[in-house]
Amino acid sequence: MPGVPPGRYGYLGPAGTFTEAALRTIRDRGEHVPFASVAAALDGVRDGDVEAALIPFENSVEGSVPAALDDLATGDPLQITREVLLPVSFALLGRTGTAREDVRTVATHPHAQAQCRRWLADVLPAASVVLSPSTADAARSVRDGVYDAAISAPVAAEHYGLQVLAKDVHDTDGAVTRFVLVGRPGQPPAPTGADRTTVVAFIAEDHPGALLQLLTEFAVRGVNLTRIESRPTGRGLGSYCFSVDCEGHVADARVGEALSALRRVCADVRFLGSYPRADAVAPAVAPGTADDDFRAAAAWLDRLRG
Amino acid sequence: MPGVPPGRYGYLGPAGTFTEAALRTIRDRGEHVPFASVAAALDGVRDGDVEAALIPFENSVEGSVPAALDDLATGDPLQITREVLLPVSFALLGRTGTAREDVRTVATHPHAQAQCRRWLADVLPAASVVLSPSTADAARSVRDGVYDAAISAPVAAEHYGLQVLAKDVHDTDGAVTRFVLVGRPGQPPAPTGADRTTVVAFIAEDHPGALLQLLTEFAVRGVNLTRIESRPTGRGLGSYCFSVDCEGHVADARVGEALSALRRVCADVRFLGSYPRADAVAPAVAPGTADDDFRAAAAWLDRLRG
Amino acid sequence: MPGVPPGRYGYLGPAGTFTEAALRTIRDRGEHVPFASVAAALDGVRDGDVEAALIPFENSVEGSVPAALDDLATGDPLQITREVLLPVSFALLGRTGTAREDVRTVATHPHAQAQCRRWLADVLPAASVVLSPSTADAARSVRDGVYDAAISAPVAAEHYGLQVLAKDVHDTDGAVTRFVLVGRPGQPPAPTGADRTTVVAFIAEDHPGALLQLLTEFAVRGVNLTRIESRPTGRGLGSYCFSVDCEGHVADARVGEALSALRRVCADVRFLGSYPRADAVAPAVAPGTADDDFRAAAAWLDRLRG
Amino acid sequence: MPGVPPGRYGYLGPAGTFTEAALRTIRDRGEHVPFASVAAALDGVRDGDVEAALIPFENSVEGSVPAALDDLATGDPLQITREVLLPVSFALLGRTGTAREDVRTVATHPHAQAQCRRWLADVLPAASVVLSPSTADAARSVRDGVYDAAISAPVAAEHYGLQVLAKDVHDTDGAVTRFVLVGRPGQPPAPTGADRTTVVAFIAEDHPGALLQLLTEFAVRGVNLTRIESRPTGRGLGSYCFSVDCEGHVADARVGEALSALRRVCADVRFLGSYPRADAVAPAVAPGTADDDFRAAAAWLDRLRG
Repeated sequence: MPGVPPGRYGYLGPAGTFTEAALRTIRDRGEHVPFASVAAALDGVRDGDVEAALIPFENSVEGSVPAALDDLATGDPLQITREVLLPVSFALLGRTGTAREDVRTVATHPHAQAQCRRWLADVLPAASVVLSPSTADAARSVRDGVYDAAISAPVAAEHYGLQVLAKDVHDTDGAVTRFVLVGRPGQPPAPTGADRTTVVAFIAEDHPGALLQLLTEFAVRGVNLTRIESRPTGRGLGSYCFSVDCEGHVADARVGEALSALRRVCADVRFLGSYPRADAVAPAVAPGTADDDFRAAAAWLDRLRG
Repeated sequence: MPGVPPGRYGYLGPAGTFTEAALRTIRDRGEHVPFASVAAALDGVRDGDVEAALIPFENSVEGSVPAALDDLATGDPLQITREVLLPVSFALLGRTGTAREDVRTVATHPHAQAQCRRWLADVLPAASVVLSPSTADAARSVRDGVYDAAISAPVAAEHYGLQVLAKDVHDTDGAVTRFVLVGRPGQPPAPTGADRTTVVAFIAEDHPGALLQLLTEFAVRGVNLTRIESRPTGRGLGSYCFSVDCEGHVADARVGEALSALRRVCADVRFLGSYPRADAVAPAVAPGTADDDFRAAAAWLDRLRG
Repeated sequence: MPGVPPGRYGYLGPAGTFTEAALRTIRDRGEHVPFASVAAALDGVRDGDVEAALIPFENSVEGSVPAALDDLATGDPLQITREVLLPVSFALLGRTGTAREDVRTVATHPHAQAQCRRWLADVLPAASVVLSPSTADAARSVRDGVYDAAISAPVAAEHYGLQVLAKDVHDTDGAVTRFVLVGRPGQPPAPTGADRTTVVAFIAEDHPGALLQLLTEFAVRGVNLTRIESRPTGRGLGSYCFSVDCEGHVADARVGEALSALRRVCADVRFLGSYPRADAVAPAVAPGTADDDFRAAAAWLDRLRG
Repeated sequence: MPGVPPGRYGYLGPAGTFTEAALRTIRDRGEHVPFASVAAALDGVRDGDVEAALIPFENSVEGSVPAALDDLATGDPLQITREVLLPVSFALLGRTGTAREDVRTVATHPHAQAQCRRWLADVLPAASVVLSPSTADAARSVRDGVYDAAISAPVAAEHYGLQVLAKDVHDTDGAVTRFVLVGRPGQPPAPTGADRTTVVAFIAEDHPGALLQLLTEFAVRGVNLTRIESRPTGRGLGSYCFSVDCEGHVADARVGEALSALRRVCADVRFLGSYPRADAVAPAVAPGTADDDFRAAAAWLDRLRG
């Protein structure tokens, strides 16, 4: 798109959120532009205000993942080109000189609070928790002297000149949150051998076999799903779409044939991108489903057809 | 549980949220207790502080639905006994005497903002939007004179003594948000003929056919799914559970046999309840899957076995 | 094959059988060569002795259909190019001057006897039945004065100079027997819109899902099966192949993709031909499985891949 | 049935066939009654003339297996209680004093001829082959001096006072033929842990998913099929039934639930028996499908239902 400044990236803001921290892990240069909501960030991409935007996509601590799914499913087409995984691990931030035992009020986002409830009960049992619209807002309010401490992304310390009073704050070990970088539609990044593909399938009709048929199109071709979420389409009772992540790249024969099959049997299919997996896990390729197998079978079929 | 005051219900607060409005539609008497998070509300049920709690469960405008799913899937067992559907429709609230054209600042929750972006751009193009941790917080800040107006649940007007400057505020017609009433485990409410059942299935092993097998257990018995969401279990790479809603009641033969089958083939299954559908839609019962069909087939089998 | 006399066709003999009658319905000129067994007839094709051979293939009144299936599955490759359906309807044949009430001995093939038992009991209760290796042999023995009458194909009357004492002899109305014309491998006849395709699939491994996977490859692409028979392969315990007829032609996109899929996931697949259905019944093409749907989906996929 | 002489068994005759040999392996006492056809033998059971009858059922060298399947599927109900496997191995029989090199004419049944063609070409290239309605008839004609030798079941030597000129006559190693003992309906024999169950399922409607649904009922419960054959029902175009053998016994929970499911979703199901496998191979029981798993799941379901 002419006029889009290259290297200008949007993210779910404000500055100091986990999404900004995630963006820094993949784009350490360029301009990073906070948006007030996922929808606003995606519209920023659509409008050419930014080249791409990073948004929370699964298991998020901030932002509405269902809303992100729906916007990508039904708004003007966009495409995912990259994913980022971040451990769900907060920091307790305070102004310089604050001792942990002096903390009486802790600001944080409701989702973050939910993930640190036991920690707060154990470590700061006497503190009262105040909710903020984002973990970054919480940090800002601490900087402004409104509250004593914030449960925020560690990156917020730097933004708001705060000190880390505790790190690795969370109730559950091993949780990660996943972000995706969304740009305008185009050719997907080249396959790496450890890719993921995201699509939204709108089923034509709701009946006990409809979802099964959809998943069978993947399974019969040896394509493993890594996420599935049904979403009401708003087109009326019993009308659903399915937001699905599968292993592999649209350039893989098995993935391509599965997507084509969805395209044939579904009311609509929206391709949301093929991109490298952040965890670099290569799929187990079932016997008979490698590209070579598809090539050999196609050659055999050509011979049969004469 | 001894000592639990009957008629004391929790909800995702604060007062004036959509969840409170939803709770009012089913419990017009008794005490309604706001909790700061879904997790806190559910713990309030577990601890016997409240009899049950209403939480957002699907397509919510506030609160983290993924976190609710995870808490119900892996926390101490609870059970859903009822569901509520509310249209996603906000009100613009201001102090008495405020004219819509005087509104310069609008407070709201990020999810609500995302759902009213076009409305705000059309109707209040010059107003600046400020984010709050809940739509009720937004209303309170208007009452306190901090901002001119709030995008909130209509119920907040009453709580905070505000005036409705505009109603039916939303970008998409027909969207609804779904809440569930969660109590301690017990016998499910009696079947009504239009019921829903919620379960969480933990697959034993991740491979291309695992999810398909799970869904086949439902489909082969004519049980339609109305929601499915995969959730990482935190037990390591490629370990998922599936949170599923299906049509019908655990007392129905087809649903019972399907759940038993899941129980046999999954690593674990958690039953989260059978309860009346808020929309009272009765399922289409496929040929051969009614209770009478199961009874007749069981009698036939008994005769074969001699 | 050089030297094969065109228009020379084999069939399961001897002259005067149903198979000869079936051959006459499709090849009224040329030379018709009887073979003593299906295996001999097929070897006649392989050796270039005949251009093609007609053999019973389903629901036969003479000849071993299982043996035919096995020979086609594991012998040197051959290809079906045509099918013929004949009603299962016999004639009672006698020498000129024989009255039906004078018949004391009736010769016939065991399969024919099985299909006329009630008729014989009703019409010729006093006659004794003598078994012959074919219905044509039965007729010949009548001509030779050995027995009074034969239950044979009507065509045998002409061959052996016999008179029809009764026609439409059979116990069950509507039964048909199916024959296939088998030639050397080559380009299949052009699609007619009402075709059938025959393949043999050797599964790689015997487990509860193996056959299901095989059939899923057809079903998921909307290809209906019209015959399936498992056959032990003789390669050891639990080793099977499946002889399958499906609707459609290898040139159809849905059939071609299904066959390619079998080729990928099975230990071996043998294509036995695509040919016009004798009953000219066109398949019901499920939504999304017509050639145009495949073409449109392939074009869409090409666009995605960039 | 009153008046049926115990220990009186029918078989597909005449005396000296493979079926008689098979019957001797399981019933060495009692009276053995030959019938001229499978249909006659089965009617002998229905009429109370014999207690049970042994008939060829799969891969037979004599008799029409398809006709047997159809008779069992649609005639008055009968039940299989036992199976017998015999290797497909013939003997060359001659009168005493005949030398193999003097054999000029060989009589045999067409199916037997098909299975010994290479052997005949190698060992008796100059002999001419004459077809008989059964391998026992062939032996009798040799005894009567009509032909020099017969390819028959070894048991025929004893019946007709013939000498074995060659044994182990066959083209393919390892082929077996399978017989079933059929009686009147009753309680199946007790499970042995290595059983087989035979049923006929009449599908309600012919469409691409009908057969798949039927097989899914087995697969989803971990029940492996060991034979499947589609048969036209004669009820009109596109109307099929499926004759199926599966591993396990109707008393097994997984088999019982699968049969019940067929009963619910099919137009009709005919149970043809559960009986010990002749090869004594116990099934691999998939995780979650043992009787204990069904019991535990049923107990869990009972608890859920309260």
